[in-house]
Amino acid sequence: MQTATQDLQELTAAAHGAAGAAAAASDAVRASWLLAIADALDANVAELVEIADSETRLGSVRLTGEVARTTGQLRLFARVITEGSYLEAVIDHANPAATPPSPDLRRILRPVGPVAVFSASNFPFAFSVAGGDTASALAVGCPVIVKAHSGHLELSRRTAEIVSQALADAGAPAGLFALVAGREAGTALVQDPLIKAVGFTGSIPGGRALFDLAVSRPEPIPFYGELGSLNPVVITPGALAARGSALASGLAASFTMGAGQFCTKPGLVFIPAGSAFGAELAAACAGKAAAPMLTDRIAAAFPGGLAGLAAQPGVEVLSGTVEQDAETDGASAVVLSTTVANVIAHPAQLLEECFGPATLLIEYGSEAELFAALALVPGSLTATVHAEDGEDIAALVEQLSGLAGRVLFGGWPTGVAVNWAQQHGGPYPATTSLFTSVGATAVRRFQRPVAYQDAPEALLPEALREDNPLAIPRRVDGTLRLA
Amino acid sequence: MQTATQDLQELTAAAHGAAGAAAAASDAVRASWLLAIADALDANVAELVEIADSETRLGSVRLTGEVARTTGQLRLFARVITEGSYLEAVIDHANPAATPPSPDLRRILRPVGPVAVFSASNFPFAFSVAGGDTASALAVGCPVIVKAHSGHLELSRRTAEIVSQALADAGAPAGLFALVAGREAGTALVQDPLIKAVGFTGSIPGGRALFDLAVSRPEPIPFYGELGSLNPVVITPGALAARGSALASGLAASFTMGAGQFCTKPGLVFIPAGSAFGAELAAACAGKAAAPMLTDRIAAAFPGGLAGLAAQPGVEVLSGTVEQDAETDGASAVVLSTTVANVIAHPAQLLEECFGPATLLIEYGSEAELFAALALVPGSLTATVHAEDGEDIAALVEQLSGLAGRVLFGGWPTGVAVNWAQQHGGPYPATTSLFTSVGATAVRRFQRPVAYQDAPEALLPEALREDNPLAIPRRVDGTLRLA
Repeated sequence: MQTATQDLQELTAAAHGAAGAAAAASDAVRASWLLAIADALDANVAELVEIADSETRLGSVRLTGEVARTTGQLRLFARVITEGSYLEAVIDHANPAATPPSPDLRRILRPVGPVAVFSASNFPFAFSVAGGDTASALAVGCPVIVKAHSGHLELSRRTAEIVSQALADAGAPAGLFALVAGREAGTALVQDPLIKAVGFTGSIPGGRALFDLAVSRPEPIPFYGELGSLNPVVITPGALAARGSALASGLAASFTMGAGQFCTKPGLVFIPAGSAFGAELAAACAGKAAAPMLTDRIAAAFPGGLAGLAAQPGVEVLSGTVEQDAETDGASAVVLSTTVANVIAHPAQLLEECFGPATLLIEYGSEAELFAALALVPGSLTATVHAEDGEDIAALVEQLSGLAGRVLFGGWPTGVAVNWAQQHGGPYPATTSLFTSVGATAVRRFQRPVAYQDAPEALLPEALREDNPLAIPRRVDGTLRLA
Repeated sequence: MQTATQDLQELTAAAHGAAGAAAAASDAVRASWLLAIADALDANVAELVEIADSETRLGSVRLTGEVARTTGQLRLFARVITEGSYLEAVIDHANPAATPPSPDLRRILRPVGPVAVFSASNFPFAFSVAGGDTASALAVGCPVIVKAHSGHLELSRRTAEIVSQALADAGAPAGLFALVAGREAGTALVQDPLIKAVGFTGSIPGGRALFDLAVSRPEPIPFYGELGSLNPVVITPGALAARGSALASGLAASFTMGAGQFCTKPGLVFIPAGSAFGAELAAACAGKAAAPMLTDRIAAAFPGGLAGLAAQPGVEVLSGTVEQDAETDGASAVVLSTTVANVIAHPAQLLEECFGPATLLIEYGSEAELFAALALVPGSLTATVHAEDGEDIAALVEQLSGLAGRVLFGGWPTGVAVNWAQQHGGPYPATTSLFTSVGATAVRRFQRPVAYQDAPEALLPEALREDNPLAIPRRVDGTLRLA
């Protein structure tokens, strides 16, 4: 399944053609489109999960939960646009007495136009055809063209069919949504002049290559890449003493969950030097069964990543087998260990993501050592601290806030709540923008501001009319009003 | 005045060193820094205007007004951060009953870190050393390093001295603000790993070159370029019939204001074919005196830009002289004229900004012709329509909203109010981002979101603590609350 160049051009032209109607549709109408998609996915959950399991081996329990998350996301975005704050409506009335006199000025966010969405392999629903990028773009009135992930093509095709039918039944404009496949189609999509933004979830090399294309266009466009993450965890001496073995169990569960194929997998764990934590973690991993990986290509890459880490001087394998045949047998958990001194000596080699059920323990001898190593950790989606009451971790929290988009206290980073406060995005390379790809504010990626100066009431968007007919929160003459 | 590489590295290191203290300072403290700068500039207005006039020839009336605008901007940003919405504080309480259970999650915007600001030539105060980019970055807690514009180096030096002294007197951290000069220093600044974002106002070629550097770094950073604009104006048949000669006077005043050296200068004016408007505009320009341009280089470039337009087939010079010596005599107004058919035949040649007191009239024979030509107009800061009540311009307004960040009804785009609703930024090449460089929301360019999961109350930023000690607007469990 490869989309031909001419077909792609027809699809982007159709998306461009649908943009006006999508932008003009009311929030209530667009919300109804999202709910129609959610209902249709729920109605077809059994079939979808069966296809997904056959292509990804993620298992029906996880996949059924992921469909619920996906439809939950669609319904969240319906609520977000209905609430109306996402428009960031601002009204400054004219002030003829000012120096210089100021006009009537009213600002709102409008859709950017057609958006390309690149699906991820590891969430065949929640970060794929009808996932968060698609939902947030449609929510604000942007047509969407999804590039299917090659790891679940049949699922992508069937999901797209359901989405398209639901949109048609709900009366959405033709051209609002489409699916393409093939690497060449993806490249062409990013370069198509009618595409105005890109959402992407995937690897750093793949994402950076597309980012480079997006920003080197004659008209550069925003590229919202979520590109993998090391997700450092810091365990303080107090936490280690108080509950080291519970932490070992918790970590083992988190880094092996879903065969370690989450972008929030804890890949680096800083622990005080000279403890039994490594042995406890090894023991906690001993009972874990090997698990199939998403695709043969991903499975084939896992031992290579492990070997690259294990080959570094000063890296020890505490648990598991580096030379494993993950394609045939599934991936089994591996714990590696090193010291801060080694990380400082070889940061590029040791601070690299290894996609799969592996984690690297890093022993620190002092807080100064810990801080020095953390300063080398690349931008991450999450950073986690395990500490005890009474330990002074303010400076540590500040440092973790500087390197991640979500800072966790006493938990594990796997598991991403989809709500208003979520931030799933951190400094580069975790993300290529100052936004989130999960949660309510993900919509802002696909909006651009327009201000109307001295506009006649009848020509203003409804959200900006004087009597606030949509009853949405707005800022009027500097004061925020709820409705 | 050229900043040496080693000096630059010391300045970026000092800015990096100040970032923590700047981020930790309360909104009230940072507001006091902005007010201290504003007060110091006001206290030195006479001296500053004198230096500025000697370097830019903009005249003391305009320059004195621009200082007021600049200090007004600083005071606006002090109000913006004091009000608190700019933090976008969001709290989702834990919900153990949800599937899966959701944690306590609290999100806020934090400063990105040190920011490089490139001054513009045409606003030696408002878009320069202490201008909007600097004010909005300092407001949210980002250290700033300004690259001085070569057109007003002495003013830049003296302004920076006043800003630095005011910040020191107000107790701001050392390293929070610095000035550099020279093209090489500018290039090095954009590539310095300690710089986390860039604000730029200037030409398309210069801005694009720096944009390309910013996005091709190992760690790409956001480049907020405001790169010039054509600012199309559309006059409808109704408006032309009702008040053609008043429109001609208004246009003449707007496109010659400040010797046409505003990024909002109306550079393209669409008029119904076969009217007396061209002659009326020529008459309105006849009385305009030539005016000195900002720098010799800019003055030397003006006749070249005019000649490039005038040499195109089908372009007529309605008023003024293309072959003028703007360096010696000042720039005098020039009105050119062509048709939509010509624009469609040669869009790249005719739809190019000519910096100076020139504008291009484009005659359209029908609404279809008008729309076809507008579809070729590059992204602009503004778009203006002059129409009469009763004319159906909804489709026209929709098209203008798609190509500009500010849509004006019945006025002229020169003059940019600094308030909450302003949007000074449009589709590329007008701007390289989805943000504004003027007005309250300009701060969002220099903030990145961080969410805290299950954080102990004492470790949360004050803005996210349960009892809302700062009394700021927040969204709590999905509901926006004023305080």
